[in-house]
Amino acid sequence: MHYMDAGTSGGVWGLANGYCLMVGCEESTYEHCLPLLKDLAPDDGGLVRTGPEGSGHFVKMVHNGVEYGLMQSYAEGFEIMKLSKSFPGMDMQAIAEAWRTGSVVRSWLLDLIADGLSRDPQLAGIRGFVEDTGEGRWTVEAAIEESVPAPIITHSLFARFRSRMEDTFADKMLAMMRNQFGGHAVQTEKK
Amino acid sequence: MHYMDAGTSGGVWGLANGYCLMVGCEESTYEHCLPLLKDLAPDDGGLVRTGPEGSGHFVKMVHNGVEYGLMQSYAEGFEIMKLSKSFPGMDMQAIAEAWRTGSVVRSWLLDLIADGLSRDPQLAGIRGFVEDTGEGRWTVEAAIEESVPAPIITHSLFARFRSRMEDTFADKMLAMMRNQFGGHAVQTEKK
Amino acid sequence: MHYMDAGTSGGVWGLANGYCLMVGCEESTYEHCLPLLKDLAPDDGGLVRTGPEGSGHFVKMVHNGVEYGLMQSYAEGFEIMKLSKSFPGMDMQAIAEAWRTGSVVRSWLLDLIADGLSRDPQLAGIRGFVEDTGEGRWTVEAAIEESVPAPIITHSLFARFRSRMEDTFADKMLAMMRNQFGGHAVQTEKK
Amino acid sequence: MHYMDAGTSGGVWGLANGYCLMVGCEESTYEHCLPLLKDLAPDDGGLVRTGPEGSGHFVKMVHNGVEYGLMQSYAEGFEIMKLSKSFPGMDMQAIAEAWRTGSVVRSWLLDLIADGLSRDPQLAGIRGFVEDTGEGRWTVEAAIEESVPAPIITHSLFARFRSRMEDTFADKMLAMMRNQFGGHAVQTEKK
Repeated sequence: MHYMDAGTSGGVWGLANGYCLMVGCEESTYEHCLPLLKDLAPDDGGLVRTGPEGSGHFVKMVHNGVEYGLMQSYAEGFEIMKLSKSFPGMDMQAIAEAWRTGSVVRSWLLDLIADGLSRDPQLAGIRGFVEDTGEGRWTVEAAIEESVPAPIITHSLFARFRSRMEDTFADKMLAMMRNQFGGHAVQTEKK
Repeated sequence: MHYMDAGTSGGVWGLANGYCLMVGCEESTYEHCLPLLKDLAPDDGGLVRTGPEGSGHFVKMVHNGVEYGLMQSYAEGFEIMKLSKSFPGMDMQAIAEAWRTGSVVRSWLLDLIADGLSRDPQLAGIRGFVEDTGEGRWTVEAAIEESVPAPIITHSLFARFRSRMEDTFADKMLAMMRNQFGGHAVQTEKK
Repeated sequence: MHYMDAGTSGGVWGLANGYCLMVGCEESTYEHCLPLLKDLAPDDGGLVRTGPEGSGHFVKMVHNGVEYGLMQSYAEGFEIMKLSKSFPGMDMQAIAEAWRTGSVVRSWLLDLIADGLSRDPQLAGIRGFVEDTGEGRWTVEAAIEESVPAPIITHSLFARFRSRMEDTFADKMLAMMRNQFGGHAVQTEKK
Repeated sequence: MHYMDAGTSGGVWGLANGYCLMVGCEESTYEHCLPLLKDLAPDDGGLVRTGPEGSGHFVKMVHNGVEYGLMQSYAEGFEIMKLSKSFPGMDMQAIAEAWRTGSVVRSWLLDLIADGLSRDPQLAGIRGFVEDTGEGRWTVEAAIEESVPAPIITHSLFARFRSRMEDTFADKMLAMMRNQFGGHAVQTEKK
């Protein structure tokens, strides 16, 4: 009996492009299964034995934590440009498209951003409600377990939590405190 | 000609309690004005010469940055308890009241929290919309100027910004990206 | 058979001042034990039944999370003042002392800060190496479990982790990347 | 008289690959200079008129802010894997190499990471001391000016600040406070 675990990345595009595979198992098991793994992986790479059983999904989990951070980095940057009062009305799609070539921030995620913005430049049809499927949470918990700071991944997770909340108790607490010490007016609850 | 600047803290309560004063000026100027300053300050302290002209407001500015962090610390903690699924329905006012005596987190802000919660235990009448009056921003800018990390004060400021936004472009970007790579469903815009 | 759990706060000072007690148990159990609990608690309060068994330590855990945030808020503020190039050499102890009276940021922790700085104004005898005893980690995990953002408590935890690290792999990665894309010089390893 | 500003990205690689150009000027000025701009830009894109004069460098500034966030996301992820106690000794270079193909986190920065790790897998010759050249600071200041939260970019900046500090006053403050309230032992200053 031998065990193997294989984390995968590439989203719905993996079917066409091959799946990036992160495989946890013993060396001999890996060699035995290599033909099968190579069939699933992209033609030109995207395959690694990460270590013993379990390590494949550990690496996949961290991969997704990194993904959260990359996504949030772009999201923040585009929001700063979108809301700029100094240069209002800049074309987010044109900027994303230009950054795709030659720039330091070019990436596959940026390719997707440029494509998504070309379909709906103001993202008018999308609500800013962002789910998470667990890997970000687990990456933060792994970081805490290892006593490693992970502010970027953690905040990317918290930004998703916050996107799903409205009129939070924490914010009400702040407004109440400001009223208490400074007499600052509070806004009453939305009708 | 001599200059003096004096930052103050204590909110609307200063009128009754005296104002904590942070005074920037030369030593001799301070001595000259001391009777006046002592009249304004609380009877038992709350008065300091911080250094040369300008330093009084610098210290007051940082004071307010610290205040942002203290407020946000309480707000986060109470929100975690308020939304606890393990122990639903805990009495925030009773907890705040108990913490006021003997605990490590007792403070004047906590006194105000207990008082505010006693008037409106669910904060039902208050909207979670939090203004800022500039000192938090300036503290962050001072930290950046000095190359000093200030994550707590900065996040306390950002939490206020976020409280004033709805359905942000950044969150729409994230939802769009997730849809692009993973085929994750997006929620369409609220009607 | 009845269960009760009681979290406590007050540090080594509890022996003299009484311990702030957060008690989880049924109402009848609480009433039964009240004389004992009142003996341990401060004379003038600092005692609360938080809910069913287990809730006492949950509230104590969050209390410590809040404590991390309060501590970090002060630490950040004093560091910004200590390292100020605009107003070098300000007296941290004098400022802490003044803030204790009348200001919005007065608290028991600030009393301790003023006392600590009076003994060693530059903190020359203390290394910036900060342990943690678990409650901060658990508070962050509880927040993640409840899908509640907790940036301040989390960063306060990460700042402690970071205080115990030197020359991190993350920072080496950044220096390496900057060298790769920009030809920016790297510093070689310390001898 | 017409003005034009052009921010650029691509690092030292621009000489070979062409420079991604973000150009701020009037439409007619842009058209007039287009042959020159196309000579400098990559053959297949990497060129955009962002808006009026000044907007080119605004977009370039935000680009660098995004870059900070992307870099920090990778740095955090690799550190979590590098320090994993569950799966010690994983091969960072092999993982980076695999992620380059097919994965969601593939990017040009990741190409550079894989290359850098192939030259020095433990980054043993590089000190974790990370400079910044200003654009991250300005992006945070722009975000604050616009009242937009920017936690990822800000923390990436603060992580760089922290990499250049040792035994900070903030950390000493925390250690002192813990000693004051809890009697927790402090480490004395390093010799």
